Amino acid sequence: MNEKNTISVATMKRLPLYLSYLQSLSPDAPVNISATSIAAALKLNEVQVRKDLALVSSGGRPKIGYKTVELIADLESCIGSEVLHEAVLVGTGNLGKALLNYNDFGRYGVHIAIAFDQNPENIGNCVNGKEILPCEQMPQVCAQRGIRLGIISVPQGAAQAVCDEMVKSGITAIWNFAHVKLIVPPGVVVLDEHIGTSLPWLVGHLS
Amino acid sequence: MNEKNTISVATMKRLPLYLSYLQSLSPDAPVNISATSIAAALKLNEVQVRKDLALVSSGGRPKIGYKTVELIADLESCIGSEVLHEAVLVGTGNLGKALLNYNDFGRYGVHIAIAFDQNPENIGNCVNGKEILPCEQMPQVCAQRGIRLGIISVPQGAAQAVCDEMVKSGITAIWNFAHVKLIVPPGVVVLDEHIGTSLPWLVGHLS
Repeated sequence: MNEKNTISVATMKRLPLYLSYLQSLSPDAPVNISATSIAAALKLNEVQVRKDLALVSSGGRPKIGYKTVELIADLESCIGSEVLHEAVLVGTGNLGKALLNYNDFGRYGVHIAIAFDQNPENIGNCVNGKEILPCEQMPQVCAQRGIRLGIISVPQGAAQAVCDEMVKSGITAIWNFAHVKLIVPPGVVVLDEHIGTSLPWLVGHLS
Repeated sequence: MNEKNTISVATMKRLPLYLSYLQSLSPDAPVNISATSIAAALKLNEVQVRKDLALVSSGGRPKIGYKTVELIADLESCIGSEVLHEAVLVGTGNLGKALLNYNDFGRYGVHIAIAFDQNPENIGNCVNGKEILPCEQMPQVCAQRGIRLGIISVPQGAAQAVCDEMVKSGITAIWNFAHVKLIVPPGVVVLDEHIGTSLPWLVGHLS
């Protein structure tokens, strides 16, 4: 299996789709499954599915396909993480709360351990068992717990400052929900999740 | 300017980044700006920025660049929508509530008008001024208001059934937050927003 960080974001996003499709198959289904039939079921490009699966599993045989159980195991091993990485989240507005309440990031190897906010009304509250602390405590908390993963769910105007604080706190991987391109030093990676920015594409199809 | 539905989702996602960067420039900045300097400021690939801008604006001049004010206007015209399209949202859990509370989809041409849920505890409540109605009323509401845009924020297992109901209600464009590939008839487009599925890529960089 390839190292995760050599697989593209686009491929990584498709892997959970393959996995949930395979897991949804009846126990009576044939023991083997081909990239062709997965592609057809998910309405994806066959060449793309074939390439994606080859990155994840070496079990594919010409004209036979993959053993379904083996492919499921290989996908789980690639998507999941042996280690559960703790993350901090900054910004506990509606989006932040939604992320704190979501319990399924664990299957992608992430557990949001603690949240930070600068609004005194939110500080001291708990969301889904996760405490909200003042932002000033981030460096200390990250150092104590060895946290290197940060989630930014603050408004656009505040995101770069939060990002800078995260970097100072030893965060090296940032999941950014603010609609702004963050500037980070070498060695820090940012994954942008700009919700809504692809809406114009969808709206364009209404016209 | 190109028709929105001929521009790729990837490009569409970058346009708001260009726009907010240009809007952040000081009024004392030079009147012209090049794709090169935008790419450098946003740490994006120069060739990509050049191609993106060429799709949006015909105002670029070799060695001079774009008039900043004209490029802002062209980006706004491409990103924004002359018409505000009403949308229905199904599923008012945390994510659904976060989406209902977010007031900035208007700049992408979308206004969430009304929400549906099947949980009796949620029905009749209002979130950010938007009423939550029982799912059974969706066909009637969509027909009466001419709504053709639907947002799915229900759990994975319920998403295909909601999608089918939306299609029956005349929805032709679906923004899907459930982690499942939806099967839709020809003429219906789906934009997937699978939050978290790219986390393994980010986590891979921690190792």
